[in-house]
Amino acid sequence: MPASRVTAHDCAEALETARAQGPLVQCLTNIVVANWTANVLLALGAAPAMVDNPHEARQFAQVAGAVLVNLGTPYDDTVDAMTLAAQGAAAAGTPWVLDPVAAGGPAWRTEHARRLLAASPTIVRGNASEIQGLAGGSGGRGVDSADTPDQVADTAGGLARRLGRTVAVSGANDLITDGEIVVRVHNGHEWMTRVTGVGCSLGALMAAFAAVASPLVAATTATAVLCVAAEDAAETTRGPGTFASALLDELWLITPARLAERAHLS
Amino acid sequence: MPASRVTAHDCAEALETARAQGPLVQCLTNIVVANWTANVLLALGAAPAMVDNPHEARQFAQVAGAVLVNLGTPYDDTVDAMTLAAQGAAAAGTPWVLDPVAAGGPAWRTEHARRLLAASPTIVRGNASEIQGLAGGSGGRGVDSADTPDQVADTAGGLARRLGRTVAVSGANDLITDGEIVVRVHNGHEWMTRVTGVGCSLGALMAAFAAVASPLVAATTATAVLCVAAEDAAETTRGPGTFASALLDELWLITPARLAERAHLS
Amino acid sequence: MPASRVTAHDCAEALETARAQGPLVQCLTNIVVANWTANVLLALGAAPAMVDNPHEARQFAQVAGAVLVNLGTPYDDTVDAMTLAAQGAAAAGTPWVLDPVAAGGPAWRTEHARRLLAASPTIVRGNASEIQGLAGGSGGRGVDSADTPDQVADTAGGLARRLGRTVAVSGANDLITDGEIVVRVHNGHEWMTRVTGVGCSLGALMAAFAAVASPLVAATTATAVLCVAAEDAAETTRGPGTFASALLDELWLITPARLAERAHLS
Repeated sequence: MPASRVTAHDCAEALETARAQGPLVQCLTNIVVANWTANVLLALGAAPAMVDNPHEARQFAQVAGAVLVNLGTPYDDTVDAMTLAAQGAAAAGTPWVLDPVAAGGPAWRTEHARRLLAASPTIVRGNASEIQGLAGGSGGRGVDSADTPDQVADTAGGLARRLGRTVAVSGANDLITDGEIVVRVHNGHEWMTRVTGVGCSLGALMAAFAAVASPLVAATTATAVLCVAAEDAAETTRGPGTFASALLDELWLITPARLAERAHLS
Repeated sequence: MPASRVTAHDCAEALETARAQGPLVQCLTNIVVANWTANVLLALGAAPAMVDNPHEARQFAQVAGAVLVNLGTPYDDTVDAMTLAAQGAAAAGTPWVLDPVAAGGPAWRTEHARRLLAASPTIVRGNASEIQGLAGGSGGRGVDSADTPDQVADTAGGLARRLGRTVAVSGANDLITDGEIVVRVHNGHEWMTRVTGVGCSLGALMAAFAAVASPLVAATTATAVLCVAAEDAAETTRGPGTFASALLDELWLITPARLAERAHLS
Repeated sequence: MPASRVTAHDCAEALETARAQGPLVQCLTNIVVANWTANVLLALGAAPAMVDNPHEARQFAQVAGAVLVNLGTPYDDTVDAMTLAAQGAAAAGTPWVLDPVAAGGPAWRTEHARRLLAASPTIVRGNASEIQGLAGGSGGRGVDSADTPDQVADTAGGLARRLGRTVAVSGANDLITDGEIVVRVHNGHEWMTRVTGVGCSLGALMAAFAAVASPLVAATTATAVLCVAAEDAAETTRGPGTFASALLDELWLITPARLAERAHLS
């Protein structure tokens, strides 16, 4: 069904809409990447709001354009806030993204990740180990991934069909599926794994695009935008430090036309 | 009363004193901008200390040169620490700055912001929506501001008079008032809104300068230093990522003479 | 005993091994430097995992290659996690590093730092004030250090002998001792004190190297790598902002051969 596949043109359109609307993205994320995530969203043109306490999370999720729930450094109170935000998002129909960091590793967070999964996130995003760990297999040794997206393609597809939702697996070749359609993004650069939080910020970008596009287009566009910007950033830098700064610049500079030209989807 | 206004020369003098003394600034701030805030203070020549737990906050506020209380990501325990720090600052006469992030938005933090306001901060600093929200109006959709400083000038002046304190409103043209005198700072660059925490770090700089100058001069100097440094940083960079790094460089490099020459006050 | 001293060649070897093995380093650190610390570890080639909640800390310390415990912004729950991580590390023989930030300053953290010290960290790392404060003297005004490593050399040596462990004191000339051998590292740059968390990331690097080398070699290698990279980074930058990015690049680029050539030990 080629007509229903995601095209680079769809991504360009989603980028244009996101820039025009500047969606408000509530982030419940971890202490390691909160700063980076906010900067990625600001560079794209979105409006981050890190409302992650139990007193405010639910209500805010009802007014936000989209919500990100990331389990990087969970604590009792922030996990409560995540649960409440998921409830608020569900009640209001706000799209939300679950990033089950290190699921399949430590038992406590894996349990919470599965509980949040049951609250039906719009998009589930992780690396191959995390998607495997979330779906029931044993995960990796932390945030690293021992597997490639293609190695967990069946698991991702099965999870997407079971949830009726979109699942995105990051890696050298990213894989995004709603259980029927499978999209692969062939852009990117190895330094994306040498800057902390690049994967986490991908989840935030998916949330931003989910505020203005379908889940499948949103997940694909976020991946393509970040990976193309990373390729451009790596061109002019010597290592992961200057690369990270340049990546924010490129997210700011990338145009829908350039995205359409450079995104390599299949 | 021109003689009582703040001049660029006053700012240059405050910068020179702050560099010479390197004031110790206790920061109770949010998980998003803690790193950036510390780096801004270090680049200026101040000494940041992020003592934000309830066991230590009060006592530390009695020995610090100044205290920053920022409500960006409040939790039960950090809000307790903020209250204790405000009490410690009051007991010891330590100047302190309240940054009521997103006041007027979520109800829980707005309530805490107003409670902290009652503890009489030396300087209250926010964008137009936050000052409006703190003073009783309805605020914005998060950390964004829908209004300009001039649109809330009357509210800011009234708040300053009611508190007997200094109120600073950030925006394209920053406005600072003690309820009698109104100072505007006409420097700055739009990328200041595309890097998370620039506003938050402005509060930290106000605290640093409040350790060595009057509240009105401190708030004006912090604003002028940050805005002039931002103009210089934007000259040589392509987007918000490299701009942020260059902004720290410029805070390190800016001289009192350059500040006096470039600060555009009215 | 020249044969037992640490040489630049030992450091080069440790760097080569760390790069080859990519040790998993569990970090229980503070909200200010978590991002920077993870990026430093990634640039070196290690794998950071910020598992710092009480539910997971102990178990994870038993599978990690090394553990960092840093008291920069302690809270009730993260201090609990630190205690559990120290227990897990002890039970599994995992090397761990204690960074007693601001010990000797606020009483609450000093008490916790001493309690953690009793759990026998593989390496204790701090500035001169912190080592003095931990060992019983009065500390500095926060994270600053009023003393030089050489001024507390006797205290550091005594502490190392009492613990039977390695103690590292950072400053213009870093001092590392196991109570018998004393190594000094004469590399570095003043901007290392103008970027928040450089000292904290030194503790993380010590943990990474402790996963693959003896404590004395690990502490020396971490110091030499960071200081040589800092010298290189300062060569091409104008201030602490661009310096910080370049420092990550240099950590990525530094080779064992260059380290052996440039490390200045005595």
